[in-house]
Amino acid sequence: MTKPTVFHIPVCPFCQRLEILLSLKGRTSDVNFRVIDITQPRPDWLLAKTRGTTALPVLESADGHVIKESLVILQYLEDLYPEPAVAQRDPYRRAVENMLTQMEAVFCTQGYTFVMNQSLERRDDLRKGMLDQYARLNDFLMEHAPSGPFLFEEFGWAETVFTPLFMRFWFLEYYEDFELPQGDQYARVREWRDASISHPAAQQVTKDEIVKLYYDYAKGAGNGTLLPGRRRSSFVFEPDWRARPWPPKNKYEHAATDEELGL
Amino acid sequence: MTKPTVFHIPVCPFCQRLEILLSLKGRTSDVNFRVIDITQPRPDWLLAKTRGTTALPVLESADGHVIKESLVILQYLEDLYPEPAVAQRDPYRRAVENMLTQMEAVFCTQGYTFVMNQSLERRDDLRKGMLDQYARLNDFLMEHAPSGPFLFEEFGWAETVFTPLFMRFWFLEYYEDFELPQGDQYARVREWRDASISHPAAQQVTKDEIVKLYYDYAKGAGNGTLLPGRRRSSFVFEPDWRARPWPPKNKYEHAATDEELGL
Repeated sequence: MTKPTVFHIPVCPFCQRLEILLSLKGRTSDVNFRVIDITQPRPDWLLAKTRGTTALPVLESADGHVIKESLVILQYLEDLYPEPAVAQRDPYRRAVENMLTQMEAVFCTQGYTFVMNQSLERRDDLRKGMLDQYARLNDFLMEHAPSGPFLFEEFGWAETVFTPLFMRFWFLEYYEDFELPQGDQYARVREWRDASISHPAAQQVTKDEIVKLYYDYAKGAGNGTLLPGRRRSSFVFEPDWRARPWPPKNKYEHAATDEELGL
Repeated sequence: MTKPTVFHIPVCPFCQRLEILLSLKGRTSDVNFRVIDITQPRPDWLLAKTRGTTALPVLESADGHVIKESLVILQYLEDLYPEPAVAQRDPYRRAVENMLTQMEAVFCTQGYTFVMNQSLERRDDLRKGMLDQYARLNDFLMEHAPSGPFLFEEFGWAETVFTPLFMRFWFLEYYEDFELPQGDQYARVREWRDASISHPAAQQVTKDEIVKLYYDYAKGAGNGTLLPGRRRSSFVFEPDWRARPWPPKNKYEHAATDEELGL
């Protein structure tokens, strides 16, 4: 029996969602994962499958159907392997997790806009915007799940959606000195984030991997784009990130060379 | 037994989605609809329920829980009244309709940005952007449902999501002379749109209602905001839209008075 295949970038947060869901279901070995090199143009055979789109992840089902968009693929896997359920089954509980899930897009955009920003003048506004996003999540959790740590009893759908973003935002800690302030305004979302990040099903990436691979994002270059004066992207597979030094943190003052980054 | 209550604006496309879904399920009388006047500040009792947010629709469940966001409410009603199913149940078919549903946000934004535009210089770009959106839907339908008219055998989830937008975009026909060009590039989406618009479950609004109520949008004023020199919004309940004349079409050259609009 053929398995579904996910075409993915290993450090991509949207791909990690699928890995987390499969891990929660004990289904990791039921899906093939095929790595795509973000620093190279997409291969023709993949573009033929996607009919020209380049966003990943993409899932090819056992009978050759192609499914795009991480949240759509996530639902497909939930429906394909219904037990154990990760999504809530009660209509109201499901609505609550869907409301929280609807907040992921602006949360994600805010974090990526912040890390990619190159203008010192915009920095304070972006920091404030990021704090507003966390405050909004905090309010939601205080309304629907004040006692924590998760939205419901266990790490579930909402955590599967948000945890990869919480982990990517380690790049904000490193390159923007962004930390959630102490105090009630962020206490509940901090608890949620920390419990989610340390869950055993979500250990596909590490902080130094994120910080090293996303260096080019911190300099404004997304999706494997090559920065001026550089020969290699921080997303290359070789040299392995484990062998590289921690990148310079001063993104607003300095542009690191390939050599400084261990590339 | 208490019923769920939807707080809504009668002409709002996101509210119409809920009415269509309930109509398809034969459940229209199982949900109370309570009309909110968009031209007035939201009442305090409603803000207390929503914890301060003003977007509608909002659903209050029979046991007093508040659910926001039209797609979340739509899923809640689908789960609450599972028979007859409007959403697909097969995992792959559901993924297909979810992929199409994911395209609604940019489609919606493009149409509203176009109608609200006040700059003649931007008009051609906005027209082109709108055509791109229709072409994208056309391509999707040609890939997944070439024989039509609907995405699957019957008017279903995707049609419930898109039909209210197709109907709102009557304002583009009227105020922007926007029509889908003849030819293969738009033939499939035109067939889909036309079949959806004429479905018996989707007859909550009419073209003249949309055109008359959205006059202020065509002049750049959204959400019941009052335009300069005007005393009444085009969204007021009285005088009823049926008693008003068709508004002037020349939005770029002329600002109609309350009197011209029959307000």
